[in-house]
Amino acid sequence: MASNGWGTLFKITTWGESHGKAVGVVIDGCPAGLPLCVEEIDQALAQRAPGKSPYTSPRDEADRAEILSGVFEGQTTGAPLSIAIANRNCDSSKYEPIKELLRPGHANSTYLQKYGVFDYRGGGRSSARETACRVAAGAVAKKILRHYGDIQVAAYVAQIGAVQAASQEHNWSRLREHTYASALYCPDAAATTAMSALLERALAEGDSVGGIVAFIVNPVPKALGDPVYEKLEAKLAHALMGLPAAKGFEIGSGFAGATWKGSEHNDSFIIHEGAARCATNHAGGLLGGITTGMPLYGRVAFKPASSIRKSLPTVTIEGKPATFTLPEGSRHDPCVAIRAVPVVEAMVALVLVDALLLDRSARL
Amino acid sequence: MASNGWGTLFKITTWGESHGKAVGVVIDGCPAGLPLCVEEIDQALAQRAPGKSPYTSPRDEADRAEILSGVFEGQTTGAPLSIAIANRNCDSSKYEPIKELLRPGHANSTYLQKYGVFDYRGGGRSSARETACRVAAGAVAKKILRHYGDIQVAAYVAQIGAVQAASQEHNWSRLREHTYASALYCPDAAATTAMSALLERALAEGDSVGGIVAFIVNPVPKALGDPVYEKLEAKLAHALMGLPAAKGFEIGSGFAGATWKGSEHNDSFIIHEGAARCATNHAGGLLGGITTGMPLYGRVAFKPASSIRKSLPTVTIEGKPATFTLPEGSRHDPCVAIRAVPVVEAMVALVLVDALLLDRSARL
Amino acid sequence: MASNGWGTLFKITTWGESHGKAVGVVIDGCPAGLPLCVEEIDQALAQRAPGKSPYTSPRDEADRAEILSGVFEGQTTGAPLSIAIANRNCDSSKYEPIKELLRPGHANSTYLQKYGVFDYRGGGRSSARETACRVAAGAVAKKILRHYGDIQVAAYVAQIGAVQAASQEHNWSRLREHTYASALYCPDAAATTAMSALLERALAEGDSVGGIVAFIVNPVPKALGDPVYEKLEAKLAHALMGLPAAKGFEIGSGFAGATWKGSEHNDSFIIHEGAARCATNHAGGLLGGITTGMPLYGRVAFKPASSIRKSLPTVTIEGKPATFTLPEGSRHDPCVAIRAVPVVEAMVALVLVDALLLDRSARL
Amino acid sequence: MASNGWGTLFKITTWGESHGKAVGVVIDGCPAGLPLCVEEIDQALAQRAPGKSPYTSPRDEADRAEILSGVFEGQTTGAPLSIAIANRNCDSSKYEPIKELLRPGHANSTYLQKYGVFDYRGGGRSSARETACRVAAGAVAKKILRHYGDIQVAAYVAQIGAVQAASQEHNWSRLREHTYASALYCPDAAATTAMSALLERALAEGDSVGGIVAFIVNPVPKALGDPVYEKLEAKLAHALMGLPAAKGFEIGSGFAGATWKGSEHNDSFIIHEGAARCATNHAGGLLGGITTGMPLYGRVAFKPASSIRKSLPTVTIEGKPATFTLPEGSRHDPCVAIRAVPVVEAMVALVLVDALLLDRSARL
Repeated sequence: MASNGWGTLFKITTWGESHGKAVGVVIDGCPAGLPLCVEEIDQALAQRAPGKSPYTSPRDEADRAEILSGVFEGQTTGAPLSIAIANRNCDSSKYEPIKELLRPGHANSTYLQKYGVFDYRGGGRSSARETACRVAAGAVAKKILRHYGDIQVAAYVAQIGAVQAASQEHNWSRLREHTYASALYCPDAAATTAMSALLERALAEGDSVGGIVAFIVNPVPKALGDPVYEKLEAKLAHALMGLPAAKGFEIGSGFAGATWKGSEHNDSFIIHEGAARCATNHAGGLLGGITTGMPLYGRVAFKPASSIRKSLPTVTIEGKPATFTLPEGSRHDPCVAIRAVPVVEAMVALVLVDALLLDRSARL
Repeated sequence: MASNGWGTLFKITTWGESHGKAVGVVIDGCPAGLPLCVEEIDQALAQRAPGKSPYTSPRDEADRAEILSGVFEGQTTGAPLSIAIANRNCDSSKYEPIKELLRPGHANSTYLQKYGVFDYRGGGRSSARETACRVAAGAVAKKILRHYGDIQVAAYVAQIGAVQAASQEHNWSRLREHTYASALYCPDAAATTAMSALLERALAEGDSVGGIVAFIVNPVPKALGDPVYEKLEAKLAHALMGLPAAKGFEIGSGFAGATWKGSEHNDSFIIHEGAARCATNHAGGLLGGITTGMPLYGRVAFKPASSIRKSLPTVTIEGKPATFTLPEGSRHDPCVAIRAVPVVEAMVALVLVDALLLDRSARL
Repeated sequence: MASNGWGTLFKITTWGESHGKAVGVVIDGCPAGLPLCVEEIDQALAQRAPGKSPYTSPRDEADRAEILSGVFEGQTTGAPLSIAIANRNCDSSKYEPIKELLRPGHANSTYLQKYGVFDYRGGGRSSARETACRVAAGAVAKKILRHYGDIQVAAYVAQIGAVQAASQEHNWSRLREHTYASALYCPDAAATTAMSALLERALAEGDSVGGIVAFIVNPVPKALGDPVYEKLEAKLAHALMGLPAAKGFEIGSGFAGATWKGSEHNDSFIIHEGAARCATNHAGGLLGGITTGMPLYGRVAFKPASSIRKSLPTVTIEGKPATFTLPEGSRHDPCVAIRAVPVVEAMVALVLVDALLLDRSARL
Repeated sequence: MASNGWGTLFKITTWGESHGKAVGVVIDGCPAGLPLCVEEIDQALAQRAPGKSPYTSPRDEADRAEILSGVFEGQTTGAPLSIAIANRNCDSSKYEPIKELLRPGHANSTYLQKYGVFDYRGGGRSSARETACRVAAGAVAKKILRHYGDIQVAAYVAQIGAVQAASQEHNWSRLREHTYASALYCPDAAATTAMSALLERALAEGDSVGGIVAFIVNPVPKALGDPVYEKLEAKLAHALMGLPAAKGFEIGSGFAGATWKGSEHNDSFIIHEGAARCATNHAGGLLGGITTGMPLYGRVAFKPASSIRKSLPTVTIEGKPATFTLPEGSRHDPCVAIRAVPVVEAMVALVLVDALLLDRSARL
């Protein structure tokens, strides 16, 4: 089945394996007339940057995108944008010793079952390397959002292990300034210190920890999203639960909202500067799947990375008991939530651009 | 935009408003050769039953489905199944007094913004009445699942307010027996007592409470789901976050998994009865978006129902301050999670049937 | 596979068999704010009217549509429109004698092969009865087209057997006035006389004849359609080749254009009333799959109806030689092209509405 | 709108402009386990070969594909296949003089209208250069078809101008041997001679001529295709009418069939080698949109190429009268039907592979 794409009118298709020649994305349906240069994409890729901190696994060189089509004289033409990002520093030989082992917590066993074959080099297609393509496409989507009323998408690390950052919903400017200045993509300095200690300990133990990424969109145009099966929260959930290692999704009050009473949860309407708006925003900016105009916010939970230095019991493809040990020199992150921050932003941006374009067909 | 459908190969489209003539669903892509009679659909509708308990809002008569097409001599033909369910007991006049008010926590404000018009009678298209169509389609999907290795989908109320039921993952037979025997669709008797007390109090206060519904699928064929953007958990999240009042989704360890270490979370592989399987199932039955063969389990959080007896400040469509009071005699549930149980089962079944059909194209 | 629908943003799904309870259509994605009443649909159904002339097979009563959802206080709400049309006068018993026979030129053999089952009553799902649903949906689409610059879609019988009507492209008002006034839906009176004689002869012989339906759209907004794989002519071809008995499709110069030279075929640009336009229109209103603003015109070829009074050699389902004879009293048309006229109009209208809505996403 | 892709389960997306860095295709949904090497794709590209004959416009070097992803150890993995083909020999400067002119018969005027921008270098995205990507994807599709009962797709030039080749439906082996041996891709030697003379004359006059390409599939599995809106002939029509310069499509008897009687057209069923089959094949291998098992055959009409040496009156983008003259040294074909032959084969193969995969979901 064709499962490597996302979107209805603004549609991406990604391709490439961790240790293949390159990874890339084709964007089909990008509106014409958007100024675009490759540096904007490279900047977005740098935020997902290998080598940025001790907490994200390094590649030697920064990712460089190449725009192969769809831009003419500095702006989009309505033709597909093809963007490729070369894979460098790919020594696949180190994966030879584990090519016959089912990897605990990893997709090689299910890919083998489904396809009868698995590209074991660095995780192949199931590698988080694929998310570079999402970030590249997200850079284009974010630029389109800025065109429409300067819509901004922000994400940040809200929790690592049990350490929680203070909520950032009411401090938008701090969020924008501090998130990417932090090695952990967490705008809360105190939490960052505690999280760093936790990560150091996990690294020392050869282990990994899970985390939670929060996202906020502000300002948000009214009336985005569609009812019933294509509610905006449903599409966000789809987009974000498709990220590697994602285990949970919340919008607005989320799971905590299940413990509230209706009289507490309902957001009253008031008149604000001459127009109706919600007095509070427990809904997270959505009613009936459609944006209210209030900020959109939610969270994504990520399990601890399955790739750890600790050895684990497993079995071989032939069904013999064995021990899985991560190859020396293979890249792995102690907490995938960190690097997920720009990827979450990208996916949220992709969902919103599609919703913007789709909304144009709602009325005569 | 066409947002009233779900599925790729097994595709449903639903129609109808709360107080229109009927609601219904067209199933396009149902495999031929499935024995089917209308009583099977009526039984499923009875589980979503109005009038079943003090905790779900009553309609006077049981829902009766009519199969208008797609079944010939007792079995499906491959042609679309059209199923209609009449709306009875629909007195729309009581909604007149609120037709000019923005309803807090409700979709009429966003529908108005998007479409310029809103069918205010009982919530119109945004009413949970639409979920009857999901249950009808789910009954067909569940029957297909039983055809394939007797795959069973079960859901139950796992939490109401702060009262949690004991986990049911390891007691499948109790789950099947006790859930629908309980007025709260909760197989844990002790929790049911506490939940009932909570609901009585909410009813007395004219208020509502939130809740959490858990779901389990067992047994699960291996290799269902697709990688990258169509991971099975992503499609489940999409399907379930599209339910009215859903605010959160988890698969496997979920948000709690974010606090674990990788060495704890990774499910080791062992040999069991001659075949490789996971020793534990923190993943919730999925790796890389594809089923491992272990049970699939997850949870959906529902906010407290927005329709409550307590009055709330609001504004009129013209932007004047007003008070919203639920019309006398209008139906409302103190906790939408209860009635959501069969709907969650239906959506999970729809996702799985589509995944079963899609999986047939993975290999030569 | 889900194959009973059409459209991307304005999406229809049809259901129902010839001799089931009803046939119907769900329109998902109809823009809100369109005034609509059931009489408008009934008028369209009357043009596809059983009993209208000696040349189309009669049902006793006129079709009556019922709008089950999606219209509130006389206008569309953005919710799905569900339209049902009851089947009356359905005596299925006469099909009993032929239920074990493969019908020459008919779909029961291929349906049996594909699905293992066939609803033999009057052709079941493969019956042209399904096209009533297309006409009902087309009535809504045509109304939307009138809203946008009064776009008009017209079709007419251009040929029956070897008898050709004069081209109608340059006589739009005559076309609109005379087509539906003619029992053969042919605005050329001289050709109508010759065609009638041909049809009388075919009826007398118990035979059928083929025909060609031409369509014209005028005026046509510029810039509708999309490049490469979704060219407007490609979508028109898809929509029209999906009609029962369709064997060929042409746009603009069509097959005749293959015999021309480029210097003759190229439509020069000129200045007309201050704007650039094509001096001629051999292209048929499309360049690169996108409308030029010139009238859109093309043709659809229909084979002679497979249901004829003459007996034909065939085999039974079990593979024994047999003779196929049409049951006494079963309905059949001597030339399906006649009744196809309003159906062609409906499909062209559906394609154009979708193109109008899709075009809104082309530019920032 | 996303219009640069084709397919439901076997899905292609193409990208690239005539004078950009490269063109390419991503195939999403290719079944795993298909042996594949780049030489197989290069061979297919050679059939669409620039420089092959005096009648197709030359590029200096043969196209070379690069497989960037989706193949591991010589076989497909189920991951997307990304195939890129570099553009060489692209001197865009010669297009400068015409960049302000509306090109008669060409898409730059409609692209400008739709997108507000046009990549004028060699036709940009509207160039037939894009069809190289279709041929590359078609090479993969053809290999899958050979895997399933050795299904073969063949196309050939059936007509150029008024010169018709003899029908090839009953001489499959000659067709396979002679088509690609002919400079005109026409297996009929006598017709080839007359066609060549016609082309020489057109070249001498700086003009172009139209043509017709026929296609045949043999053997054909039964039960491919879906009823109603996704009939196989409808999908073939969509796929083939999306080719540059296509103006008409026929299946089986086509437009000629409109002049027949039903008693002549209906294909009787007989017993052949113990099984039921059609005695004749006027239907072209399809009944009700589903394959009968008889050969599938049809035709596509192409208009004369719009790029000719003769000058034509036109207007500038600003609406001033002007004369269009093709730039010196720009490539153009005297008859696009020739080079369309492998492209038609590719599109037919893509449609059939999708139909094969989709058919797996028809029955339980």
